[in-house]
Amino acid sequence: MEFSATFQQELDELFHWRRDVRRFQTRSLPDGLLSELLEATGSAPSVGLSEPWRFVEIVDAERRSRVVESFERCNTAALEAQDPADADLYARLKLEGLREAPTHLAVFCDEADQKSRGLGQSVMPEMRRYSVVCAVMQLWLAARARGVGMGWVSILEPEVVRAAASARKDWVLIAYLCLGWPEEEHLDCELERAGWAEREKVAKRVSRV
Amino acid sequence: MEFSATFQQELDELFHWRRDVRRFQTRSLPDGLLSELLEATGSAPSVGLSEPWRFVEIVDAERRSRVVESFERCNTAALEAQDPADADLYARLKLEGLREAPTHLAVFCDEADQKSRGLGQSVMPEMRRYSVVCAVMQLWLAARARGVGMGWVSILEPEVVRAAASARKDWVLIAYLCLGWPEEEHLDCELERAGWAEREKVAKRVSRV
Repeated sequence: MEFSATFQQELDELFHWRRDVRRFQTRSLPDGLLSELLEATGSAPSVGLSEPWRFVEIVDAERRSRVVESFERCNTAALEAQDPADADLYARLKLEGLREAPTHLAVFCDEADQKSRGLGQSVMPEMRRYSVVCAVMQLWLAARARGVGMGWVSILEPEVVRAAASARKDWVLIAYLCLGWPEEEHLDCELERAGWAEREKVAKRVSRV
Repeated sequence: MEFSATFQQELDELFHWRRDVRRFQTRSLPDGLLSELLEATGSAPSVGLSEPWRFVEIVDAERRSRVVESFERCNTAALEAQDPADADLYARLKLEGLREAPTHLAVFCDEADQKSRGLGQSVMPEMRRYSVVCAVMQLWLAARARGVGMGWVSILEPEVVRAAASARKDWVLIAYLCLGWPEEEHLDCELERAGWAEREKVAKRVSRV
């Protein structure tokens, strides 16, 4: 199976146009689209073919509001912990789209499932969690290719999200995702546009021994 | 920026044809191709635009042999720990292509760098490591689109790899990657073909609350 030069270039454009979206339209995604996106994650790599990903769509308003409250609590604390030189800018950043996004998805790693009988996990058990991150990344790209925006919210208490999702005790929170149609599209990321930090060339991060 | 239905379908094919490759041709990758692939990871998402990925290409034969020895040590221990019902099959599995792969890449997460001033990492500091996994996943897809195979070896002692890569103390090993032209291509993964485990529908892993 070969991929054309045109496809390689379009793939690179997809990488560049993928954003961590925090500004969503409130209208719902069409029926079946979330399932289609989730099924696209099924070909993601997983250590020992463990497929440890567990997805919980959170639709209930009361459960969602517990997540929003957790964000607000954690973000207030994060703002208070900022260096004074950064605090004003930090306070102006929009870091999530929890209220607007029509779809909320909590993604967990099942640490107890024995499907893979531990293959590849003896020395680096964190590989299970990394497998779930690979699935999230594949979901992100599949979504963006269809025009759907995704935002990954990490300023949340994992225990609160686990309870809100009625997740099992042996499930570790990996990602809390907002999905929906984006309000706007940009080639640069929101933190860059706001002046928080700049992208750097990868070459700076590469060495050879 | 919109992506066509054709591209969406090809992207799905890329996801399906990406493999964890363990059977490599020994011939080198063309000059510049690794740099091109690494540059393609630069648009990966990272928490707070931290870009915590650090790549070390390991070319020195003595350094590589320390990694191979670590794999052998860990894999022997993993074999001894197998359930007797699985041990014969486990022993026959080919789990890495360290000797054949022309390119070895150790990927680390810099836990100390302050570029992002901790944004998004206050409650879930593991987000930095997950950002590096996102970059690895992007590298994997960019490589496969160009016909380059990649294998992720996790049966290794992180300390040994860190020493072999002359990595800094505050760099955490995320992935040890082999890259090169694959010997063969398959739509199913090697562990499935060998009968270790089977892929399952993602729908089984999804709930709604």
